[in-house]
Amino acid sequence: MTVTYALDQDTAAKLASLAQQLRVDSVRSSSAAGSGHPTSSLSAADLMAVLLARYLRYDFTNPDAPGNDHLIFSKGHASPLVYAMLKAAGAITDEELLTYRRLGSRLEGHPTPRLPWVDVATGSLGQGLPIGVGLALTGKQLDRLPYHVWVLCGDSEMAEGSIWEAIEQAGYSGLDNLTAIIDVNRLGQRGPTRHGWDTSAYAQRLAAFGWNAIEIDGHDIAAVDRAYAQARVTLRQPTAIVARTRKGRGVSAVENVEGMHGKPVPDADEAIRELGGPRDERIHVQPPEPGLRPHVFPSGELRLPEYQPGDKVATRTAFGQALAAVGTARSKVVVLDGEVADSTRTEFFARAHPERFFELYIAEEQMVAAAVGMQVRGWAPFAATFAAFMSRALDFIRMAAISRANIRLAGSHAGVSIGQDGPSQMGLEDLAALRAIYGSTVLYPCDANQTAALTATMADLAGISYLRTTRGDTPVIYRPGEEFPVGGSRVLRSSETDQVRARVIDAYSVKPIDGGAIRQAAADTGHVLTVEDHWPQGGLGDAVLETLAVPGSPLPVVVKLAVRAMPASATPAEQLHAAGIDAAAIVAGVAELVPA
Amino acid sequence: MTVTYALDQDTAAKLASLAQQLRVDSVRSSSAAGSGHPTSSLSAADLMAVLLARYLRYDFTNPDAPGNDHLIFSKGHASPLVYAMLKAAGAITDEELLTYRRLGSRLEGHPTPRLPWVDVATGSLGQGLPIGVGLALTGKQLDRLPYHVWVLCGDSEMAEGSIWEAIEQAGYSGLDNLTAIIDVNRLGQRGPTRHGWDTSAYAQRLAAFGWNAIEIDGHDIAAVDRAYAQARVTLRQPTAIVARTRKGRGVSAVENVEGMHGKPVPDADEAIRELGGPRDERIHVQPPEPGLRPHVFPSGELRLPEYQPGDKVATRTAFGQALAAVGTARSKVVVLDGEVADSTRTEFFARAHPERFFELYIAEEQMVAAAVGMQVRGWAPFAATFAAFMSRALDFIRMAAISRANIRLAGSHAGVSIGQDGPSQMGLEDLAALRAIYGSTVLYPCDANQTAALTATMADLAGISYLRTTRGDTPVIYRPGEEFPVGGSRVLRSSETDQVRARVIDAYSVKPIDGGAIRQAAADTGHVLTVEDHWPQGGLGDAVLETLAVPGSPLPVVVKLAVRAMPASATPAEQLHAAGIDAAAIVAGVAELVPA
Repeated sequence: MTVTYALDQDTAAKLASLAQQLRVDSVRSSSAAGSGHPTSSLSAADLMAVLLARYLRYDFTNPDAPGNDHLIFSKGHASPLVYAMLKAAGAITDEELLTYRRLGSRLEGHPTPRLPWVDVATGSLGQGLPIGVGLALTGKQLDRLPYHVWVLCGDSEMAEGSIWEAIEQAGYSGLDNLTAIIDVNRLGQRGPTRHGWDTSAYAQRLAAFGWNAIEIDGHDIAAVDRAYAQARVTLRQPTAIVARTRKGRGVSAVENVEGMHGKPVPDADEAIRELGGPRDERIHVQPPEPGLRPHVFPSGELRLPEYQPGDKVATRTAFGQALAAVGTARSKVVVLDGEVADSTRTEFFARAHPERFFELYIAEEQMVAAAVGMQVRGWAPFAATFAAFMSRALDFIRMAAISRANIRLAGSHAGVSIGQDGPSQMGLEDLAALRAIYGSTVLYPCDANQTAALTATMADLAGISYLRTTRGDTPVIYRPGEEFPVGGSRVLRSSETDQVRARVIDAYSVKPIDGGAIRQAAADTGHVLTVEDHWPQGGLGDAVLETLAVPGSPLPVVVKLAVRAMPASATPAEQLHAAGIDAAAIVAGVAELVPA
Repeated sequence: MTVTYALDQDTAAKLASLAQQLRVDSVRSSSAAGSGHPTSSLSAADLMAVLLARYLRYDFTNPDAPGNDHLIFSKGHASPLVYAMLKAAGAITDEELLTYRRLGSRLEGHPTPRLPWVDVATGSLGQGLPIGVGLALTGKQLDRLPYHVWVLCGDSEMAEGSIWEAIEQAGYSGLDNLTAIIDVNRLGQRGPTRHGWDTSAYAQRLAAFGWNAIEIDGHDIAAVDRAYAQARVTLRQPTAIVARTRKGRGVSAVENVEGMHGKPVPDADEAIRELGGPRDERIHVQPPEPGLRPHVFPSGELRLPEYQPGDKVATRTAFGQALAAVGTARSKVVVLDGEVADSTRTEFFARAHPERFFELYIAEEQMVAAAVGMQVRGWAPFAATFAAFMSRALDFIRMAAISRANIRLAGSHAGVSIGQDGPSQMGLEDLAALRAIYGSTVLYPCDANQTAALTATMADLAGISYLRTTRGDTPVIYRPGEEFPVGGSRVLRSSETDQVRARVIDAYSVKPIDGGAIRQAAADTGHVLTVEDHWPQGGLGDAVLETLAVPGSPLPVVVKLAVRAMPASATPAEQLHAAGIDAAAIVAGVAELVPA
């Protein structure tokens, strides 16, 4: 579809003036800070001026309004431009603009949701577009609202695989509520990008993935305007505006000059003069149409599955069945799959709630990014794959924490106990990786009823939470309906009269760990043995050691049983034996620790 | 270019018979094991039979022969087919074939280099093709040998972004020594793939990235043969053979049936009968032309840069300068960049040794995968990006350990001390992630001379090694030429007579950590304070705790200073202060630990 009309000269001049203001303010903030990325902001100023003044629908007085469009800077380093736009829209003052990158300022080096108009943190390249895909899916299938998702991408980040996961997903899903604006300024951090100004290289790739790709001069206000108009009316396809721009545009000392990435312009006063001097225009951004309300799915009662003590049930199965039940009770719960729903058992949810189940195929980065996008709009996503493959999305999980995102992750097939499939499928570092995510909750249930209870608990947890499940069937040891608070533990066995004074603690909450109970047990017995189906680094053993290391008291003797050699293929029992974490190894470890 | 000829009927029949043998043996091994992926093997049997018999050039008696082609199963779960091929080539016996997935067998559930004919471990999807790109780059630019790299991909894994990083890199580099064979069997693990049998969906995407894409019926022996012939003669472009196949081909109980992924066929005897019964043909695989020798770059003397105590130099700068010097001395050293060479300072190497420097652009998964590919041929790769962005490639690093790969990683911009850029750019979980990699070495130098020495040491290290560097200038405290063994530490200060008996230990080797020195210091002083610019989980503090947790003796009092709140933007000094890891915080921590 082609949109034909002409932008009147007066409007075009006003837009050009607004773009210059965005440039001036980008220069001013970064020069005041003494750091930042003005040149990456200058290239995209015309693109963003037209978007802000004529296409974005956003109520800056109510950033949570359901009908608001979403604008994500996938090239998060262009934060001076974000803040210049917020000032132009009247959301922040000029005074605050000049706090950029200072201690205590909300205007961080890369944008974060500490600013209510910023949905997600960016700055690790290649993440904004997949998150935008998650928001666009939300608009279509969950909220069912007409908001549009605009994502400003850099040309350098088009090399990231996660960008192509997003492009594939968006094209396949026909997300016509998504527009990627690609700022092809030719220069990356260390020099020219792979494709330079060859906008057709990008356009032909995007078209092959089913996108409507429009190549324009990103400094031609009328061309920019036409492209947005076209993006707004294109149906059943996402649009990519592939804009040829000049890095540092408008400041001759840096325009299209290599080596000027991530630095203030050399002479701010001269640059501001060249850009036409300071301006202080405020523009009225068009709000969304009033009265828009998101779709609400019906919700019912929570009836968790119940397992009989003595039976054998895999915790992954209990997770899947509980998730379906939680989905019935909590209509905001949504589930994302990396094409392994039969293994992680989210297939139970898929069958019960197909409208809230999202198949992202084998694209773990897009899976986690989509979860981050969905929680922006208040949905409660669970994303699941093998524990081993969570490592594929670790940078996305790391950034989700900076986004203050509330997402739930579940990793199945933990440890050597999976058996014959071998080490490529074994999650042996997932506890270490997930514990080292800021503010995370890490849960590792030992039976089916506990798994069901913790799955229900996760639906209400803030931040990043992670549930680790096991492939094989394990004995049900708790009764249905028992409670397992986050940060708690259970004493499974206790013998105070035997030869060995011993206590078996089920530390199902690895982070936060039940420091009180563990310290008490250590004080009572003088010895602690930890057992985990994980490498020795960063898992349960380290969590126990950390909680025992409290100032003021010496630590007890601690021995960690963990997987210390590279496994191969073998039966689950052989694997546990070879790794020295089976029952016999525990008995031997205790005997060594506390000689009879 | 089109190759026109006809395969004679006799040859075609022999190839078809070989394909049936590969199928029979895939069924036999997986049925004997009681697990595995026969259906994913059956779909690709014709493709692999033709490759093995007519196109692969490989000396199975000498798997390290420099001229050997490389065959990588990116769809590693089709391991029964790998092992059936090895048997047909005479590399393993039928007896060993039937040890598949048993304790002690080299024939693991997914292939690993425990078998000398397997270059790298696969099984985490989306990795074989990027590793193959690394090998193809090696053939062109390092070895300068005419070997060909063949990669068998699954259709499901085409959803992984890392596959598109590889496709972009290969197309851009014109790798005509690389052929991807895409087994489009339509069925993924949990059901139909995104594109089903739409081979044109794959072909049009590949063509947009500059590949020669050939769509064929993957069970038409003559068509398969023609496609390989074309791949062999195509110049300046990689070739993708997009082969429409049927999962479970040849066994009617499972052929093109959903729900048959990753399971033995229901009736092995019946399946073998249907496939024409057991065969025991051995084929002669054509060896590479004799006398091929890899290119050797000149090497010289090692002259590490020297820094004067009292000066201030960033450890990242010392790393880059030392790397250039190591490159002069060691001609096998190669360097890979994720478009941040100016930040990581590998730019020094790039200038000194442009032929051994590889720009992978912002594609960290492809960067690490290329390193893995290069070390297959004996090169000594260093791959560098920001410490924070190593998390992007964690699954590749995890798999590299299973590949027994020797690769060196360097992460710059560690911790909050980077300052204004904010948390998205701060590596705060890299020690945790890298410590939890099997057999890894983790080094965290504190000054420039130490960094230079450790960089030189890394060139000789086996396994996965990781060097963590700092953005800002820090004081040079060691003299040039001092030695810093892996697993060592240094006592920087020691006061035995003061009010507080204290010792300052530079634990530059985080893994392995210098347990002896730390335990001795703990025994002498009774208290340990650890300080790190990292989250509290999984870093130096946990490494110290682990080394103190030795059976037989209680632990001393340990306090960990680490980053415990989400940072924002601020100056480096403000960041260290806010995180409680600056000099004042250390003094206060010690005072609290040991009241005067």
